[in-house]
Amino acid sequence: MHPSRKKVYVTGSRDDIRVPFAEVELSGGEEPLRLYDTSGPGSDPEAGLPELRRRWIDERGRDSRSNTQIHYARKGVVTPEMEFIAIREGLEAEFVRKEVAEGRAIIPANVNHPESEPMIIGKNFLTKINANIGTSAVSDSIADEVEKLTWATKWGADNVMDLSTGKHIHETREHIIRNSPVPIGTVPLYQALEKVDGDPIKLTWEIYRDTIIEQAEQGVDYMTVHAGVLLRYVPMAANRVTGIVSRGGSIMAAWCLAHHEESFLYTHYRELCEIFAKYDISFSLGDGLRPGSIADANDEAQFAELRTLGELTKIAWEYDVQVMVEGPGHVPMHKIKENVDLQQEICEEAPFYTLGPLTTDVAPAYDHITSAIGAAMIGWFGTAMLCYVTPKEHLGLPNRDDVKEGVIAYKIAAHAADLAKGHPQAQQWDDALSKARFEFRWEDQFNLSLDPERAREYHDETLPAEPAKTAHFCSMCGPKFCSMKISHELKEYAAQGMAEKSEEFKEKGNKVYLPVIG
Amino acid sequence: MHPSRKKVYVTGSRDDIRVPFAEVELSGGEEPLRLYDTSGPGSDPEAGLPELRRRWIDERGRDSRSNTQIHYARKGVVTPEMEFIAIREGLEAEFVRKEVAEGRAIIPANVNHPESEPMIIGKNFLTKINANIGTSAVSDSIADEVEKLTWATKWGADNVMDLSTGKHIHETREHIIRNSPVPIGTVPLYQALEKVDGDPIKLTWEIYRDTIIEQAEQGVDYMTVHAGVLLRYVPMAANRVTGIVSRGGSIMAAWCLAHHEESFLYTHYRELCEIFAKYDISFSLGDGLRPGSIADANDEAQFAELRTLGELTKIAWEYDVQVMVEGPGHVPMHKIKENVDLQQEICEEAPFYTLGPLTTDVAPAYDHITSAIGAAMIGWFGTAMLCYVTPKEHLGLPNRDDVKEGVIAYKIAAHAADLAKGHPQAQQWDDALSKARFEFRWEDQFNLSLDPERAREYHDETLPAEPAKTAHFCSMCGPKFCSMKISHELKEYAAQGMAEKSEEFKEKGNKVYLPVIG
Repeated sequence: MHPSRKKVYVTGSRDDIRVPFAEVELSGGEEPLRLYDTSGPGSDPEAGLPELRRRWIDERGRDSRSNTQIHYARKGVVTPEMEFIAIREGLEAEFVRKEVAEGRAIIPANVNHPESEPMIIGKNFLTKINANIGTSAVSDSIADEVEKLTWATKWGADNVMDLSTGKHIHETREHIIRNSPVPIGTVPLYQALEKVDGDPIKLTWEIYRDTIIEQAEQGVDYMTVHAGVLLRYVPMAANRVTGIVSRGGSIMAAWCLAHHEESFLYTHYRELCEIFAKYDISFSLGDGLRPGSIADANDEAQFAELRTLGELTKIAWEYDVQVMVEGPGHVPMHKIKENVDLQQEICEEAPFYTLGPLTTDVAPAYDHITSAIGAAMIGWFGTAMLCYVTPKEHLGLPNRDDVKEGVIAYKIAAHAADLAKGHPQAQQWDDALSKARFEFRWEDQFNLSLDPERAREYHDETLPAEPAKTAHFCSMCGPKFCSMKISHELKEYAAQGMAEKSEEFKEKGNKVYLPVIG
Repeated sequence: MHPSRKKVYVTGSRDDIRVPFAEVELSGGEEPLRLYDTSGPGSDPEAGLPELRRRWIDERGRDSRSNTQIHYARKGVVTPEMEFIAIREGLEAEFVRKEVAEGRAIIPANVNHPESEPMIIGKNFLTKINANIGTSAVSDSIADEVEKLTWATKWGADNVMDLSTGKHIHETREHIIRNSPVPIGTVPLYQALEKVDGDPIKLTWEIYRDTIIEQAEQGVDYMTVHAGVLLRYVPMAANRVTGIVSRGGSIMAAWCLAHHEESFLYTHYRELCEIFAKYDISFSLGDGLRPGSIADANDEAQFAELRTLGELTKIAWEYDVQVMVEGPGHVPMHKIKENVDLQQEICEEAPFYTLGPLTTDVAPAYDHITSAIGAAMIGWFGTAMLCYVTPKEHLGLPNRDDVKEGVIAYKIAAHAADLAKGHPQAQQWDDALSKARFEFRWEDQFNLSLDPERAREYHDETLPAEPAKTAHFCSMCGPKFCSMKISHELKEYAAQGMAEKSEEFKEKGNKVYLPVIG
């Protein structure tokens, strides 16, 4: 929590539904503004990381067939999780239930991750963002990854995926889940591959299934499953500029080709559904054949796989399992809308979850920006969650600073999407900040910023003195030249009628432009 | 010029038409790739800043009425400037002439700025970007501004506006123009205001006209003129969240109200056209009533002014004067397209030149990103030039680093727009980079990047050793896990037929995943 903000809780119909918000005090006579807060209780030094959902989960008991939010939603039950989300998003609980029941939204909430604060992914809710973290063979500190998790949620990550691939995968994940106030996703195939010494050909359904159960027991909330990479689609990617760029996709393609058999993820998919239903793990149906370059966008391989993901979505729903569908990748702007439209049609409005997309390939080291452009657009068009891309994409693993840059770029994209979708809560934030800006309430402007610390730091770089924080100008124009200042005079002037005020304005003229400092 | 690139020249129909390109050598057996180059001869330590256009200007002589590129274009003359541009953009010179003749594109080229390398602004050409620099009352080093100019063009600024407002405005501008290989724009009102001690009410047409002539003589290529802020429009802005945020707009509004008279920029507009025609200064018709917040986007005040800018465009054309039209500002995504469509209709396809737009107000310190989203989209929709926004927007004046961040974010936006518009030259750059990436040609990938230095630096942060530059993996996945690597095997495999290669692939399996280093 930023020091300029205060965590407040809104209580629901029962005492243990306490929904956190980040409250910003304002000095312009307005009510404080409450912002959606992902930082979790862990960032409050007073509290630990309590098992917020323990009672709710225990009260429901465990059904032998399905313990999922969609299961309850379809039975007409509004769970405490749904009420929590309704308060969080400023909507009716019944609306939340209906969206989940109809598969248009998911609540990733493994029964073994009671620490998580309920959140929802669906196009009729605030656009969410996901941050990827995780160790690799060349960088494997568990402490670093837990720190990145806390850091990512501080800046606004709604979900975090642990993509660890090095040693200590199990232990790293345990630390991450127990410390995470947001749902945690994984790609179980990575750990399964470690178990067969990195040789995809040695993978089997049994090894994969055991890995799923291991992770399910730990509390993983959603899992990427590349079950749409079918044997017959693999040759479609052969003549691409960048082939198969999804790790999961390339592993499964290698397996299919070597065995000349259909993917075990596809042939055992119903067994997966049964497991997912018991723990309430949500599917994130992986797009193993997503394009890795502008040249490969929206091609035959990509859309063939998407059709299979549509089939798999409907099968998951048969088992009362929640499901979202992953999307690209690298897509030029004019081809973005087709991705959402097609996914929404084929997958009957199951939530879409895209990686960017990057709108050009030419800017490695700035792919948080190339992809924020695509992410904002695809969010507007109906994508429910945006997977962030950091400045290190294509070049290396993100460090702490990169995680922040990625999260902030994606909070911008998600909020821009919410504004464009006309989400009822979105614009009040912009209006509060712009009003503070117009009224030269610098402290309010900083405190309302997505990154209060950096906004203040940048301001202070050229006008560090404390009086500058109340000055009616900034270093961009200096005291004599401020358009906002002139504009204030005009506003007063117009309010009092034009002609009769002309003389007064003329007289005030020189006073208006007197320097305030310096 | 980046050390990894070589400046090469393509000669036109006469020896003194020598068009620069930045050539990138490639190691994959391809031809070198030639990129559009804005860095100018000044960045080549061997050369000075020669008067490239001196002979062309002298040969044409000086006409008492009009010396503009549109004047020649309408007479059917292909000027050396037009041929230079045709080579630069990979198009026919006759096409360039026609676009200029019909007002759909402009070539900012004051006869007193012979050092500039001809460039064109129009929707049927590569999308251009503008970088703003300039001193202010609180920051006024001339050397710093000249350094920012060189720095901005190194990273790809197509145009630079000198928005100086402090002391030494004349001298600063002189240094900037004499050192600039790109067209220079100004807002003459700022200097005129300095001449009346910062009191807008004391402004007169005569003082403004003399300022215009002073700047015209120095060689300013385009000037922002806020002639569309009419007396009757001012009250329309009174109830906005952020009033009038354009400095020029607020100055003229203050003048109109205080005198209760129509703006002298509007009443003397035809005299301005006569002056502009002589020097070949292009109008940049300022949007003094642009929205400064999401709440104020696309409102009555903004579009009323736009209609007047449409009238003024047609008057400029009567005088054979080139003209572009400025646009906003702060606009949520769903209201962006209307801005271009309306401007193109009202101004009969005169080039649109927008500031961003920012797609949300909540991220001060990241407005290069909030606005790159809007800029990419508006570029795709037909905006010809994008005025950059730096991370310091709303907070302070940009330093050297901020200028670079702003330029790079806008090169991304402009190139993404060119891809989406289907510009014939755009995608070859992406394809070359993606091919290099897929083939693990790291050096080629760095050299093809928008920012080769940072791409290399980020890569080296986690895998600094020299062998890593030729390694067939990167630190993101490590050696055992690279999807690109697996994908290569698949490509080979698919090329040779699937079934018969199954065994061989299986045998190769273990070898494929052997670590290359570490």
